[in-house]
Amino acid sequence: MQFNSQTTIENVVEKSFTVDDVPGVLWAPAAPCEPTPLVLMGHPGGLHKRAPGLVARATRLVSSFGFRVAAIDAPGHGERQRSASDSAWVDRMQRARRAGEHLGAIVSEFNASIAERAVPEWRATLDALEALDEVDSGRPVGYSGMTLATEIGFRLAAADERIGALGLGAAFASDALEDVARRVAAPVLYLLPWDDQEIDRDSGLALFDAIGAPDKVLHVFPGPHERVPSFEADDAARFLARHLMPEVESGQSM
Amino acid sequence: MQFNSQTTIENVVEKSFTVDDVPGVLWAPAAPCEPTPLVLMGHPGGLHKRAPGLVARATRLVSSFGFRVAAIDAPGHGERQRSASDSAWVDRMQRARRAGEHLGAIVSEFNASIAERAVPEWRATLDALEALDEVDSGRPVGYSGMTLATEIGFRLAAADERIGALGLGAAFASDALEDVARRVAAPVLYLLPWDDQEIDRDSGLALFDAIGAPDKVLHVFPGPHERVPSFEADDAARFLARHLMPEVESGQSM
Repeated sequence: MQFNSQTTIENVVEKSFTVDDVPGVLWAPAAPCEPTPLVLMGHPGGLHKRAPGLVARATRLVSSFGFRVAAIDAPGHGERQRSASDSAWVDRMQRARRAGEHLGAIVSEFNASIAERAVPEWRATLDALEALDEVDSGRPVGYSGMTLATEIGFRLAAADERIGALGLGAAFASDALEDVARRVAAPVLYLLPWDDQEIDRDSGLALFDAIGAPDKVLHVFPGPHERVPSFEADDAARFLARHLMPEVESGQSM
Repeated sequence: MQFNSQTTIENVVEKSFTVDDVPGVLWAPAAPCEPTPLVLMGHPGGLHKRAPGLVARATRLVSSFGFRVAAIDAPGHGERQRSASDSAWVDRMQRARRAGEHLGAIVSEFNASIAERAVPEWRATLDALEALDEVDSGRPVGYSGMTLATEIGFRLAAADERIGALGLGAAFASDALEDVARRVAAPVLYLLPWDDQEIDRDSGLALFDAIGAPDKVLHVFPGPHERVPSFEADDAARFLARHLMPEVESGQSM
């Protein structure tokens, strides 16, 4: 793990790093403090590790709860080169969108492919992060993200027992993803948009139903997946804190 | 409105009252303070205005957010005599339960009948409460409750514009109740148990979908309606505070 640069904004320090050529960011309290639990944060498809919404949620997890938060670019996203086969997939999506076709199946297949590649990268990143003195490596780790990041989160949690709570939502569901969700034992808060042209309600409800964890909650909000109400981000932050920092959560406000 | 008795427990004063022979309770901060918004709280079928869960939630709304909270006994509940026709309904329910029959239709019909009688009682109680100096009568009023109280809450909100936010859930849904829900314009947080023998998922989702308010949220939790997780009660309290006391909510923790 190599740290490259560092900036501090409003009591949160942001450090750029790479692990095996995968670029990432770690947000942490700027003031010296005890080692704290980690939250991994995924970005939606087409975005990257410093998307403004992601940065806003990450810095609030740091400043309101004291988490350390990390994000990496998914394969073919952000600072990473897009492969020829990923480019072909993006072209297919764009053609389908122009033709007014339903995108669900294409996006779901593409996301599954990216997620399969992202899981070992996240696990290597987590190994590196847990080796840092500032991270409380004995504690369960949170994971948060929507759409593509949800596909990755389910697969990561099914593969890695260190993931102890997940805030997910708006996946492009599939039978394959339901099978993965069945193997997830860590608590999940799942966000479902109620009026989305590309993510239908029934597939979202079936995916929630499939989640293996006995401790799971579904939050449904009106509108499309691009407009998640800010209170839902607050709820997800509290959900992670309740499971990962029970000693802190009750005394914190968002 | 006649006040009968008063006790104070941990900074919350509890005052018994009657309005037109309907017995009620008002919980308020014990310390002198400015007039505050009201939350009306309904009890589930078979319980009453001082059911322990209701009292716990009411006193937390007072102590965490500074609301004043009122509850009344529904017709045939608590201190109120059950009519011969209500008794016949209860007998039918008990026979159906012993016979292992599905209770939904009977309960839904019974709850609708109670709710129709409860709405004018709540409106008279609200008139009386708003005449009190301690109540900020210019502000929208909250309403909170599950099962029977949800049937009452939808009908009250459809009939009375003073209701400005509702925390509801686990209704025994029906086409008639969906029609009422369509006329509710105030924000609703709706709680749906995911594994209930008597309240099926699809009817709950259809009821949520019917709610007329553009600002509505659905929270689904595993298990039956009798075991609402405590964090869901916290979420409902925050939802009411966000809509009724936006100046306070962000600074409060639960």
